[in-house]
Parts: sequence; structure tokens; C-alpha cells
Amino acid sequence: MSALPAGRLVGVGVGPGDPELMTLKAVRALGTADVVAYFAKLGNASHARAIAHSHFRAGAEELPLGYPVTTEMAKDEEPYRDAIASFYDASARAVAAHLDAGRTVAVLSEGDPMFYGSYMHLHVRLADRYPTQVIAGVTGMSGCWSLAGAPIAQGDDVLSVLPGTLAEGELARRLAGTDAAVIMKVGRNLPKIRRALEAAGKLGQALYVERGTMDGGYCERLAGRADGPAPYFAIVLVPGWGGRE
Amino acid sequence: MSALPAGRLVGVGVGPGDPELMTLKAVRALGTADVVAYFAKLGNASHARAIAHSHFRAGAEELPLGYPVTTEMAKDEEPYRDAIASFYDASARAVAAHLDAGRTVAVLSEGDPMFYGSYMHLHVRLADRYPTQVIAGVTGMSGCWSLAGAPIAQGDDVLSVLPGTLAEGELARRLAGTDAAVIMKVGRNLPKIRRALEAAGKLGQALYVERGTMDGGYCERLAGRADGPAPYFAIVLVPGWGGRE
Repeated sequence: MSALPAGRLVGVGVGPGDPELMTLKAVRALGTADVVAYFAKLGNASHARAIAHSHFRAGAEELPLGYPVTTEMAKDEEPYRDAIASFYDASARAVAAHLDAGRTVAVLSEGDPMFYGSYMHLHVRLADRYPTQVIAGVTGMSGCWSLAGAPIAQGDDVLSVLPGTLAEGELARRLAGTDAAVIMKVGRNLPKIRRALEAAGKLGQALYVERGTMDGGYCERLAGRADGPAPYFAIVLVPGWGGRE
Repeated sequence: MSALPAGRLVGVGVGPGDPELMTLKAVRALGTADVVAYFAKLGNASHARAIAHSHFRAGAEELPLGYPVTTEMAKDEEPYRDAIASFYDASARAVAAHLDAGRTVAVLSEGDPMFYGSYMHLHVRLADRYPTQVIAGVTGMSGCWSLAGAPIAQGDDVLSVLPGTLAEGELARRLAGTDAAVIMKVGRNLPKIRRALEAAGKLGQALYVERGTMDGGYCERLAGRADGPAPYFAIVLVPGWGGRE
């Protein structure tokens, strides 16, 4: 029995939401992939699939990878970490089965695959065993600051990408020590983020961006926005550059 | 005399070098622009033009914006800053003349227009006077970490984008205090960057990427590379994520 040549794993960045912000390379990769895999919460549609599906090859097999329900578990505790690790292990095995059969598997990733994306969990489990290609994509933060028309960083600016989950004091300290910032994972952290920006003297510059380049996306000054509910994937931008030459 | 409706200014991100990493949106914008403007050093070809020119509309007018020669001037002194500001003022006037005549002007930008790009100098001078659109692009750093197959940041990681021009102590301090880092403007700063990484205990993780997604681009461990000449646009990556779940 002769072994089939292994298939190819392709991490495909599909950009921040606007289907026109997909790259030519992503479109071509999807036009030839035998299998298209994507992560989604169980019972929810995949955003990445919605962005990219019009480019799937006719007859391509779809491989949805449904996150386990973990709402009852504390995210910093072992049962949660175990459940998630088992899920990524099983997902990697499902992808590997197709690769072993000689099929090319494209794994969709919102934004850029290597930048805070789930694709990485497959990459670290499979890239040393199969031919692998990563196709860079436009990040959500680029989509946001372009929508906002906000020059984010220039020249010798330091830019910090910060999770809104940081403690208030640390967030304030990091905001004070950087020229430009992108704060991700806003959601319920918004009141804390606002206080940290105020402490750092940067609330006046901050922009709140919701749904980035998706339909209905918009941008407003954070200072003028109430602390009502904000989605987890909203972003706060602190442009570092106000027109310096 | 009735005034013409003003044309539209479009900042077009053309991505990090590989023409296939242009977005569908950028390609479409170039297919309809009356004028395509791009910055380049006088006497040098424009990288952005080389990436994008096959998509220019037939008959589109090209507007090269040639940086003045400033090699004799110290960059932190007033004569240099004045010369550069005058150059951007004149460039904005040249673009505005086309906009006033009702033409759509696409301004090419390597990578993403709002992320350390020259387009911003036109944006801040023109966007309040003309209809303006910014088309996000794949950044050079995304192109680099994708080429390297290096998961750069995940979960609650802090990512810092640092210019290699920072003083050694500050660079070391910032590298020690971040999970992941991208160091830009490497060039002659490479020996200093290496010492700062060593002081921060992160030299072992660091990757050196040259020419990103351009032809002949490659990636190697910085620890194994000699401190020979490095191009200004080389990048050093410190991935923050080594396979944590």
C-alpha cells in the first residue's frame, strides 16, 4: 500500500468583516480548497463563513468546528482550560484526517490568522507535520481605524495592543506610557477602560468603534458615549498622531 | 460658473509586497480611479506602484510624489522638518488640484494607509475638505509573521509595536514588559536591538524577517544571525505565544 501524499493546511485570513477586504490570495485559496473549516459557537453562524462563502469551490466540503458550551465554567480555572484544550485537540484530529487523505484544507480566520485568532490552535498542533501556508489578512483593528479615518501611528510612535481585561491600574499605566493604543475585548470592561483612559489623560482622544467594517459598523468619540452595554468585539482606539509633520 | 462636484480622495492600502495580498476593494478602487498618486524617493521606483500597477485603469494619470533629498540634514532638526512639511504641503496641493477638477484620486500606501504610512500626511491635510475613503490593507508585520508561521499574540497577550530607534534601555524595558513585540525600523539599530532583547531575556524567541512577503523574503532566528548590514525595513518579531492552550 502506498501512502497518499499529505494534503496542505492553509490558514486563510478573511479580513475584518467587509467581504471586499478579503485578499486576492484568500479568494484564490478558497477557490481550490477541498475542505473549508471554520470555528463557531455551537448553534451560531460563523462570521468568517459569512464573509467568505461566496468564494468556496463548488462541491467543497465544509467542516464546522463548534466550540463547546462553557458558559458555566470560570475561564481561569482548570475544567475550562481542559475542555478547550480537548476541543482544539479534537478539531486538529478532524482536520488531520482530511490532510491524511490528501485533501487541501482551508481554515478560515476572521482578520489575520496569527493575530489573536483561533486558527493558531490548529497551527501549533499541525504545522510541523503537514505542508502549511498562512495567508495574512486585514486585521479588525485596521478595519476600525480606517473606518474611523484615524491616523493611528506614525514615525517613531510606540503602539500598544491591550486587552480590556487588564486590571484598571495596569491599563492606566500602559496607556500613559504609549503613544497610540488599541484596546480589544471591550464588552463589560468599558467603564473600567474609560476610567483608565481618564487616569492616563487620554480619554479626549479615544474613539469607540463597534462592528468595524461589518454592516452597520460605526465610530464615535468615547467621551460622548454612555457606558451602556458594549459588544465583546468592540474596540477602543487611541490615535497617537494628531497631524504632526 | 457652476462649481464641479469635488472628486474623491481614496487612501488605498496595497499590502506588504505580494501583489496577491491586495484586497478586492483596493483592486476595484484602482480600476476606477482617474489619478493614482504614490510617494517615492526621487530617482527610485515606488514599491507601492510595483505592487499595484497591473490594476490601474487604462489611461489613469499617474502622480508620483518624490521625496526631497534630505540625506545631508539631521532628521531631528528644524531644516529637515521644514523641508518635509513643505513637501507634504505641496503634495497635498497637487492632489487637491485633481480633486477640485472632479477627479477621483487613489493614493497608494504600502501595507495599511493609517499604520505608519505616508498617506496620513495627505489625509490630515485633505480629509476635512473632500469626500474621503480609506481602504485598509494587510500590514507589513502581518505579512512577516505569516511568512514566519509565527503565532504572534493570543488571548490576553499585550502586543507592543516598537521603533528600533528607541534608546537601548527603553527598548529593553518595554520588551521585558510585553508578551509579544514587533520591532520596526531595524537597519543600523540591529546590534542595539539584539542587546535589548538579551537584557529582556527574549533573544531566544526573536525572529528576524527581511523583505517580508516580497520576492526573496525570508525569516530566521535572530540569535543565529550575524550583526551584518540589515535593511531599514527589516522587522524583528517576538512571538508572545508558544502554544499555550
